[in-house]
Amino acid sequence: MSFIDVNVERYVDKKNDVLPERLAALRRQAIGAHVPIISDQVSAFLAAQLALIKPRRILEIGTAIGYSGALLLHYSTAHLTTIESDAAVRQRALDNFDALGLTARVTALLGDASAVLTTLTEQYDFVFIDAGKAHYLDYFKKAERLVAPNGVIVADNVLLRGYLAGEPHPRRQRTANGRMENFINYARHQRDFQTALLTIGDGILISVKGNQHE
Amino acid sequence: MSFIDVNVERYVDKKNDVLPERLAALRRQAIGAHVPIISDQVSAFLAAQLALIKPRRILEIGTAIGYSGALLLHYSTAHLTTIESDAAVRQRALDNFDALGLTARVTALLGDASAVLTTLTEQYDFVFIDAGKAHYLDYFKKAERLVAPNGVIVADNVLLRGYLAGEPHPRRQRTANGRMENFINYARHQRDFQTALLTIGDGILISVKGNQHE
Repeated sequence: MSFIDVNVERYVDKKNDVLPERLAALRRQAIGAHVPIISDQVSAFLAAQLALIKPRRILEIGTAIGYSGALLLHYSTAHLTTIESDAAVRQRALDNFDALGLTARVTALLGDASAVLTTLTEQYDFVFIDAGKAHYLDYFKKAERLVAPNGVIVADNVLLRGYLAGEPHPRRQRTANGRMENFINYARHQRDFQTALLTIGDGILISVKGNQHE
Repeated sequence: MSFIDVNVERYVDKKNDVLPERLAALRRQAIGAHVPIISDQVSAFLAAQLALIKPRRILEIGTAIGYSGALLLHYSTAHLTTIESDAAVRQRALDNFDALGLTARVTALLGDASAVLTTLTEQYDFVFIDAGKAHYLDYFKKAERLVAPNGVIVADNVLLRGYLAGEPHPRRQRTANGRMENFINYARHQRDFQTALLTIGDGILISVKGNQHE
Protein backbone atom coordinates (compact mmCIF):
# COMPACT_ATOMS: atom_id res chain seq x y z
CA MET A 1 0.00 0.00 0.00
CA SER A 2 1.20 3.48 -0.80
CA PHE A 3 -0.19 6.99 -0.74
CA ILE A 4 1.15 7.56 -4.27
CA ASP A 5 -0.84 6.38 -7.26
CA VAL A 6 0.49 2.94 -8.17
CA ASN A 7 1.06 3.77 -11.86
CA VAL A 8 2.94 6.96 -11.01
CA GLU A 9 5.07 5.20 -8.41
CA ARG A 10 5.98 2.44 -10.87
CA TYR A 11 6.77 4.99 -13.60
CA VAL A 12 8.95 7.08 -11.30
CA ASP A 13 10.85 4.09 -9.93
CA LYS A 14 11.53 2.99 -13.50
CA LYS A 15 12.90 6.42 -14.44
CA ASN A 16 15.12 6.43 -11.34
CA ASP A 17 17.19 3.42 -12.37
CA VAL A 18 20.42 4.74 -10.88
CA LEU A 19 21.76 1.44 -9.62
CA PRO A 20 25.00 -0.05 -10.89
CA GLU A 21 24.66 -3.73 -11.81
CA ARG A 22 26.37 -4.99 -8.65
CA LEU A 23 23.82 -3.23 -6.48
CA ALA A 24 20.95 -4.21 -8.73
CA ALA A 25 21.84 -7.84 -8.03
CA LEU A 26 21.74 -7.23 -4.27
CA ARG A 27 18.38 -5.50 -4.76
CA ARG A 28 16.93 -8.50 -6.60
CA GLN A 29 18.20 -10.81 -3.86
CA ALA A 30 16.58 -8.64 -1.16
CA ILE A 31 13.25 -8.48 -2.96
CA GLY A 32 13.33 -12.25 -3.52
CA ALA A 33 13.87 -12.79 0.23
CA HIS A 34 11.18 -10.21 1.15
CA VAL A 35 13.76 -8.02 2.88
CA PRO A 36 12.48 -4.41 2.81
CA ILE A 37 14.88 -2.06 1.02
CA ILE A 38 14.74 1.56 -0.08
CA SER A 39 12.87 2.20 -3.32
CA ASP A 40 14.57 3.31 -6.54
CA GLN A 41 13.09 6.80 -6.14
CA VAL A 42 14.60 7.08 -2.65
CA SER A 43 17.91 5.79 -4.04
CA ALA A 44 17.93 8.49 -6.73
CA PHE A 45 17.02 11.15 -4.17
CA LEU A 46 19.89 10.04 -1.91
CA ALA A 47 22.29 9.99 -4.88
CA ALA A 48 21.35 13.57 -5.81
CA GLN A 49 21.75 14.75 -2.21
CA LEU A 50 25.12 13.01 -1.93
CA ALA A 51 26.24 14.70 -5.17
CA LEU A 52 25.41 18.05 -3.52
CA ILE A 53 26.86 17.35 -0.09
CA LYS A 54 29.95 15.33 -1.04
CA PRO A 55 30.16 13.90 2.49
CA ARG A 56 33.40 12.73 4.04
CA ARG A 57 31.66 10.76 6.79
CA ILE A 58 28.22 9.12 6.69
CA LEU A 59 26.36 7.73 9.70
CA GLU A 60 23.61 5.19 9.12
CA ILE A 61 21.16 4.09 11.80
CA GLY A 62 19.88 0.67 10.73
CA THR A 63 22.34 -1.34 8.64
CA ALA A 64 19.92 -4.13 7.71
CA ILE A 65 21.58 -6.18 4.94
CA GLY A 66 23.78 -3.29 3.82
CA TYR A 67 21.86 -2.33 0.68
CA SER A 68 21.32 1.34 1.53
CA GLY A 69 24.83 1.54 3.00
CA ALA A 70 26.33 0.24 -0.23
CA LEU A 71 24.30 2.80 -2.15
CA LEU A 72 25.47 5.64 0.10
CA LEU A 73 29.06 4.51 -0.52
CA HIS A 74 28.58 4.14 -4.28
CA TYR A 75 27.39 7.72 -4.61
CA SER A 76 30.07 9.27 -2.42
CA THR A 77 33.71 8.93 -1.48
CA ALA A 78 32.79 8.83 2.21
CA HIS A 79 33.51 6.44 5.04
CA LEU A 80 30.34 4.81 6.40
CA THR A 81 29.67 4.18 10.08
CA THR A 82 26.56 2.03 10.39
CA ILE A 83 24.69 0.66 13.42
CA GLU A 84 22.69 -2.59 13.61
CA SER A 85 21.19 -4.27 16.68
CA ASP A 86 20.80 -7.77 15.22
CA ALA A 87 24.10 -9.69 15.05
CA ALA A 88 22.93 -12.12 12.33
CA VAL A 89 21.63 -9.28 10.16
CA ARG A 90 24.87 -7.34 10.66
CA GLN A 91 26.81 -10.42 9.53
CA ARG A 92 24.82 -10.54 6.28
CA ALA A 93 25.65 -6.88 5.73
CA LEU A 94 29.35 -7.56 6.35
CA ASP A 95 29.25 -10.36 3.78
CA ASN A 96 27.56 -8.06 1.27
CA PHE A 97 30.03 -5.21 1.88
CA ASP A 98 32.85 -7.70 1.42
CA ALA A 99 31.43 -9.05 -1.84
CA LEU A 100 31.14 -5.46 -3.10
CA GLY A 101 34.72 -4.61 -2.12
CA LEU A 102 33.53 -2.00 0.37
CA THR A 103 34.86 -3.45 3.65
CA ALA A 104 37.66 -0.90 4.06
CA ARG A 105 35.15 1.96 3.85
CA VAL A 106 32.75 0.64 6.52
CA THR A 107 32.69 0.64 10.31
CA ALA A 108 29.80 -1.67 11.23
CA LEU A 109 28.80 -1.25 14.85
CA LEU A 110 26.68 -3.82 16.71
CA GLY A 111 24.26 -2.62 19.35
CA ASP A 112 21.14 -0.69 20.19
CA ALA A 113 21.31 2.55 18.20
CA SER A 114 20.00 4.66 21.12
CA ALA A 115 22.94 3.51 23.22
CA VAL A 116 25.57 3.46 20.46
CA LEU A 117 24.76 7.02 19.34
CA THR A 118 25.74 8.41 22.74
CA THR A 119 29.22 6.88 22.37
CA LEU A 120 30.08 8.49 19.01
CA THR A 121 32.40 11.49 18.93
CA GLU A 122 33.05 12.27 15.24
CA GLN A 123 31.10 14.70 13.06
CA TYR A 124 29.09 13.36 10.13
CA ASP A 125 28.05 15.21 6.98
CA PHE A 126 25.19 12.85 6.25
CA VAL A 127 23.07 10.93 8.77
CA PHE A 128 20.57 8.40 7.43
CA ILE A 129 17.87 7.11 9.79
CA ASP A 130 16.26 3.90 8.54
CA ALA A 131 15.66 1.78 11.62
CA GLY A 132 12.99 1.13 14.28
CA LYS A 133 10.35 3.75 13.52
CA ALA A 134 9.21 4.03 17.14
CA HIS A 135 12.55 5.61 18.04
CA TYR A 136 13.05 8.25 15.35
CA LEU A 137 12.69 11.16 17.79
CA ASP A 138 15.34 9.69 20.06
CA TYR A 139 17.68 8.99 17.13
CA PHE A 140 17.23 12.50 15.76
CA LYS A 141 17.91 14.16 19.11
CA LYS A 142 21.04 12.08 19.63
CA ALA A 143 22.22 12.68 16.04
CA GLU A 144 21.86 16.48 16.22
CA ARG A 145 25.18 17.00 17.99
CA LEU A 146 26.90 14.63 15.52
CA VAL A 147 25.92 16.54 12.36
CA ALA A 148 28.63 18.72 10.84
CA PRO A 149 27.73 22.27 9.77
CA ASN A 150 25.91 22.13 6.40
CA GLY A 151 25.33 18.42 6.98
CA VAL A 152 21.96 16.70 6.87
CA ILE A 153 19.78 14.22 8.70
CA VAL A 154 17.56 12.18 6.34
CA ALA A 155 14.89 9.84 7.73
CA ASP A 156 13.04 7.25 5.64
CA ASN A 157 9.50 5.81 5.98
CA VAL A 158 8.21 8.72 8.06
CA LEU A 159 4.68 8.79 6.59
CA LEU A 160 3.89 5.21 7.66
CA ARG A 161 2.10 4.29 4.40
CA GLY A 162 -0.17 7.28 4.84
CA TYR A 163 -1.54 6.10 8.18
CA LEU A 164 0.00 9.19 9.73
CA ALA A 165 -2.24 11.44 7.64
CA GLY A 166 -5.42 9.78 8.82
CA GLU A 167 -5.73 7.01 6.26
CA PRO A 168 -7.90 4.22 7.71
CA HIS A 169 -5.74 2.25 10.10
CA PRO A 170 -6.03 -0.35 12.84
CA ARG A 171 -6.36 0.96 16.40
CA ARG A 172 -2.92 -0.38 17.33
CA GLN A 173 -1.41 2.00 14.78
CA ARG A 174 -2.25 5.01 16.97
CA THR A 175 0.81 4.77 19.18
CA ALA A 176 3.12 4.52 16.16
CA ASN A 177 1.37 7.49 14.55
CA GLY A 178 1.70 9.58 17.70
CA ARG A 179 5.39 8.82 18.01
CA MET A 180 6.14 9.69 14.38
CA GLU A 181 4.05 12.88 14.64
CA ASN A 182 6.12 13.91 17.67
CA PHE A 183 9.31 13.29 15.70
CA ILE A 184 8.18 15.34 12.70
CA ASN A 185 7.01 18.21 14.86
CA TYR A 186 10.26 18.22 16.79
CA ALA A 187 12.43 18.17 13.66
CA ARG A 188 10.58 20.92 11.84
CA HIS A 189 10.75 23.27 14.80
CA GLN A 190 14.51 23.04 15.29
CA ARG A 191 15.68 26.52 14.31
CA ASP A 192 19.21 25.44 13.39
CA PHE A 193 17.85 22.97 10.82
CA GLN A 194 15.95 23.65 7.58
CA THR A 195 13.48 20.78 7.37
CA ALA A 196 11.20 19.44 4.64
CA LEU A 197 8.70 16.56 4.80
CA LEU A 198 8.49 14.93 1.38
CA THR A 199 6.13 12.46 -0.33
CA ILE A 200 9.04 10.43 -1.70
CA GLY A 201 8.81 6.63 -1.32
CA ASP A 202 7.09 6.04 2.04
CA GLY A 203 7.89 9.57 3.18
CA ILE A 204 11.27 11.25 3.61
CA LEU A 205 12.20 13.93 6.12
CA ILE A 206 15.33 15.96 5.40
CA SER A 207 16.84 18.42 7.88
CA VAL A 208 19.76 20.58 6.75
CA LYS A 209 21.96 21.92 9.55
CA GLY A 210 22.87 25.59 9.48
CA ASN A 211 20.05 27.98 8.74
CA GLN A 212 21.60 30.70 6.61
CA HIS A 213 18.62 33.02 6.24
CA GLU A 214 17.96 34.00 9.86
CA MET B 1 -6.26 16.23 -9.23
CA SER B 2 -3.07 14.76 -7.88
CA PHE B 3 -1.30 11.41 -7.87
CA ILE B 4 -0.77 11.73 -4.14
CA ASP B 5 -3.52 10.71 -1.72
CA VAL B 6 -5.45 13.88 -0.88
CA ASN B 7 -5.23 13.42 2.90
CA VAL B 8 -1.50 12.79 2.77
CA GLU B 9 -0.90 15.80 0.51
CA ARG B 10 -2.91 18.05 2.85
CA TYR B 11 -1.07 16.71 5.89
CA VAL B 12 2.35 17.17 4.31
CA ASP B 13 1.61 20.70 3.09
CA LYS B 14 0.46 21.60 6.61
CA LYS B 15 3.70 20.27 8.12
CA ASN B 16 5.75 22.22 5.54
CA ASP B 17 4.59 25.63 6.70
CA VAL B 18 7.92 27.32 6.04
CA LEU B 19 6.56 30.62 4.76
CA PRO B 20 7.23 33.90 6.52
CA GLU B 21 4.08 36.00 7.00
CA ARG B 22 4.88 38.40 4.14
CA LEU B 23 5.05 35.54 1.68
CA ALA B 24 2.01 33.84 3.18
CA ALA B 25 0.01 36.98 2.33
CA LEU B 26 1.20 36.81 -1.29
CA ARG B 27 0.27 33.14 -1.33
CA ARG B 28 -3.28 33.88 -0.14
CA GLN B 29 -3.61 36.59 -2.78
CA ALA B 30 -2.46 34.21 -5.53
CA ILE B 31 -4.82 31.46 -4.43
CA GLY B 32 -7.71 33.95 -4.26
CA ALA B 33 -6.99 35.04 -7.83
CA HIS B 34 -6.58 31.43 -9.03
CA VAL B 35 -2.95 32.06 -9.97
CA PRO B 36 -1.09 28.74 -9.80
CA ILE B 37 1.82 28.80 -7.35
CA ILE B 38 4.21 26.20 -5.96
CA SER B 39 2.83 24.08 -3.12
CA ASP B 40 4.05 24.31 0.46
CA GLN B 41 5.81 20.96 0.09
CA VAL B 42 7.70 22.22 -2.95
CA SER B 43 8.55 25.40 -1.03
CA ALA B 44 10.01 23.39 1.83
CA PHE B 45 11.95 21.21 -0.60
CA LEU B 46 13.42 24.29 -2.30
CA ALA B 47 14.26 25.84 1.09
CA ALA B 48 16.15 22.70 2.12
CA GLN B 49 18.04 22.55 -1.17
CA LEU B 50 18.94 26.24 -0.92
CA ALA B 51 20.23 25.64 2.63
CA LEU B 52 22.54 22.98 1.18
CA ILE B 53 23.65 24.85 -1.93
CA LYS B 54 23.90 28.41 -0.56
CA PRO B 55 23.70 29.84 -4.09
CA ARG B 56 25.19 33.18 -5.05
CA ARG B 57 23.20 33.43 -8.27
CA ILE B 58 19.79 31.94 -9.05
CA LEU B 59 18.20 31.75 -12.49
CA GLU B 60 14.44 31.31 -12.73
CA ILE B 61 12.62 30.45 -15.96
CA GLY B 62 9.05 31.65 -15.50
CA THR B 63 8.66 34.61 -13.14
CA ALA B 64 4.85 34.56 -13.01
CA ILE B 65 3.79 36.88 -10.16
CA GLY B 66 7.11 36.52 -8.34
CA TYR B 67 5.97 34.16 -5.61
CA SER B 68 8.53 31.41 -6.19
CA GLY B 69 11.21 34.05 -6.87
CA ALA B 70 10.50 35.72 -3.53
CA LEU B 71 10.73 32.32 -1.86
CA LEU B 72 14.07 31.55 -3.52
CA LEU B 73 15.37 34.91 -2.28
CA HIS B 74 14.01 34.45 1.23
CA TYR B 75 15.85 31.17 1.66
CA SER B 76 19.15 32.36 0.22
CA THR B 77 21.40 35.39 0.04
CA ALA B 78 21.51 35.11 -3.76
CA HIS B 79 20.78 37.50 -6.59
CA LEU B 80 17.86 36.34 -8.74
CA THR B 81 17.72 36.59 -12.52
CA THR B 82 14.21 35.70 -13.66
CA ILE B 83 12.62 35.48 -17.14
CA GLU B 84 8.99 36.16 -18.04
CA SER B 85 7.42 36.43 -21.51
CA ASP B 86 4.26 38.32 -20.50
CA ALA B 87 4.87 42.02 -19.83
CA ALA B 88 1.77 42.50 -17.66
CA VAL B 89 2.60 39.45 -15.55
CA ARG B 90 6.18 40.65 -15.18
CA GLN B 91 4.91 44.02 -13.96
CA ARG B 92 2.86 42.30 -11.23
CA ALA B 93 6.02 40.46 -10.17
CA LEU B 94 7.98 43.73 -10.08
CA ASP B 95 5.29 45.24 -7.86
CA ASN B 96 5.41 42.25 -5.55
CA PHE B 97 9.23 42.27 -5.38
CA ASP B 98 9.07 45.99 -4.57
CA ALA B 99 6.47 45.50 -1.82
CA LEU B 100 8.70 42.79 -0.31
CA GLY B 101 11.80 45.00 -0.44
CA LEU B 102 13.52 42.62 -2.86
CA THR B 103 13.97 44.88 -5.91
CA ALA B 104 17.71 45.32 -5.49
CA ARG B 105 18.21 41.55 -5.52
CA VAL B 106 16.27 40.90 -8.75
CA THR B 107 17.03 41.20 -12.46
CA ALA B 108 13.66 40.65 -14.17
CA LEU B 109 14.09 39.96 -17.87
CA LEU B 110 11.23 40.23 -20.34
CA GLY B 111 11.15 37.88 -23.30
CA ASP B 112 10.79 34.38 -24.58
CA ALA B 113 12.89 32.18 -22.32
CA SER B 114 14.25 30.07 -25.19
CA ALA B 115 15.70 33.23 -26.76
CA VAL B 116 16.75 34.98 -23.54
CA LEU B 117 18.64 31.92 -22.28
CA THR B 118 21.03 32.04 -25.24
CA THR B 119 22.01 35.63 -24.31
CA LEU B 120 23.05 34.90 -20.71
CA THR B 121 26.74 34.63 -19.86
CA GLU B 122 26.97 34.26 -16.06
CA GLN B 123 27.10 31.02 -14.11
CA TYR B 124 24.21 30.12 -11.81
CA ASP B 125 24.31 27.82 -8.77
CA PHE B 126 20.57 27.18 -8.88
CA VAL B 127 18.32 27.10 -11.97
CA PHE B 128 14.58 26.77 -11.41
CA ILE B 129 12.39 25.82 -14.39
CA ASP B 130 8.71 26.61 -13.80
CA ALA B 131 7.38 27.86 -17.14
CA GLY B 132 5.76 26.53 -20.34
CA LYS B 133 5.90 22.77 -19.90
CA ALA B 134 6.13 22.07 -23.63
CA HIS B 135 9.62 23.61 -23.67
CA TYR B 136 11.34 22.00 -20.69
CA LEU B 137 13.79 20.04 -22.86
CA ASP B 138 14.85 23.20 -24.68
CA TYR B 139 15.19 25.13 -21.39
CA PHE B 140 17.24 22.35 -19.82
CA LYS B 141 19.62 22.08 -22.78
CA LYS B 142 20.15 25.83 -22.82
CA ALA B 143 20.58 25.97 -19.04
CA GLU B 144 23.24 23.24 -18.94
CA ARG B 145 26.10 25.52 -19.91
CA LEU B 146 24.90 28.14 -17.38
CA VAL B 147 25.05 25.86 -14.32
CA ALA B 148 28.08 26.30 -12.08
CA PRO B 149 29.94 23.19 -10.88
CA ASN B 150 27.98 21.60 -8.00
CA GLY B 151 24.97 23.69 -9.04
CA VAL B 152 21.52 22.29 -9.79
CA ILE B 153 18.67 22.46 -12.25
CA VAL B 154 15.27 21.94 -10.62
CA ALA B 155 12.12 21.60 -12.75
CA ASP B 156 8.57 21.74 -11.34
CA ASN B 157 5.34 20.06 -12.52
CA VAL B 158 7.12 17.37 -14.53
CA LEU B 159 4.63 14.57 -13.83
CA LEU B 160 1.69 16.44 -15.39
CA ARG B 161 -0.82 15.38 -12.68
CA GLY B 162 0.08 11.77 -13.27
CA TYR B 163 -0.96 11.85 -16.93
CA LEU B 164 2.64 11.11 -17.82
CA ALA B 165 2.46 7.75 -16.05
CA GLY B 166 -0.54 6.60 -18.02
CA GLU B 167 -3.35 7.92 -15.84
CA PRO B 168 -6.50 8.32 -17.95
CA HIS B 169 -6.10 11.46 -20.02
CA PRO B 170 -7.65 13.21 -22.99
CA ARG B 171 -6.18 12.46 -26.40
CA ARG B 172 -4.79 15.99 -26.71
CA GLN B 173 -2.58 15.28 -23.70
CA ARG B 174 -0.42 12.88 -25.73
CA THR B 175 1.81 15.52 -27.28
CA ALA B 176 2.45 17.11 -23.89
CA ASN B 177 3.22 13.70 -22.39
CA GLY B 178 5.64 12.88 -25.21
CA ARG B 179 7.49 16.15 -24.80
CA MET B 180 7.85 15.78 -21.05
CA GLU B 181 8.96 12.16 -21.42
CA ASN B 182 11.68 13.29 -23.85
CA PHE B 183 12.80 15.91 -21.33
CA ILE B 184 13.00 13.44 -18.44
CA ASN B 185 14.87 10.88 -20.53
CA TYR B 186 17.34 13.47 -21.73
CA ALA B 187 18.01 14.84 -18.24
CA ARG B 188 18.52 11.47 -16.58
CA HIS B 189 21.00 10.33 -19.20
CA GLN B 190 23.31 13.34 -18.94
CA ARG B 191 26.43 11.84 -17.39
CA ASP B 192 27.68 15.09 -15.86
CA PHE B 193 24.42 15.45 -13.90
CA GLN B 194 23.06 13.29 -11.07
CA THR B 195 19.31 13.32 -11.65
CA ALA B 196 16.31 12.24 -9.59
CA LEU B 197 12.62 12.29 -10.53
CA LEU B 198 10.55 12.86 -7.39
CA THR B 199 6.87 12.57 -6.45
CA ILE B 200 6.89 15.94 -4.71
CA GLY B 201 3.99 18.30 -5.50
CA ASP B 202 3.16 17.72 -9.17
CA GLY B 203 6.53 16.12 -9.78
CA ILE B 204 10.02 17.58 -9.34
CA LEU B 205 13.13 16.75 -11.34
CA ILE B 206 16.48 17.68 -9.80
CA SER B 207 19.80 17.43 -11.67
CA VAL B 208 23.01 18.08 -9.76
CA LYS B 209 25.98 19.07 -11.89
CA GLY B 210 29.28 17.32 -11.29
CA ASN B 211 29.11 13.62 -10.92
CA GLN B 212 31.67 12.75 -8.28
CA HIS B 213 31.44 8.96 -8.32
CA GLU B 214 32.46 8.17 -11.87
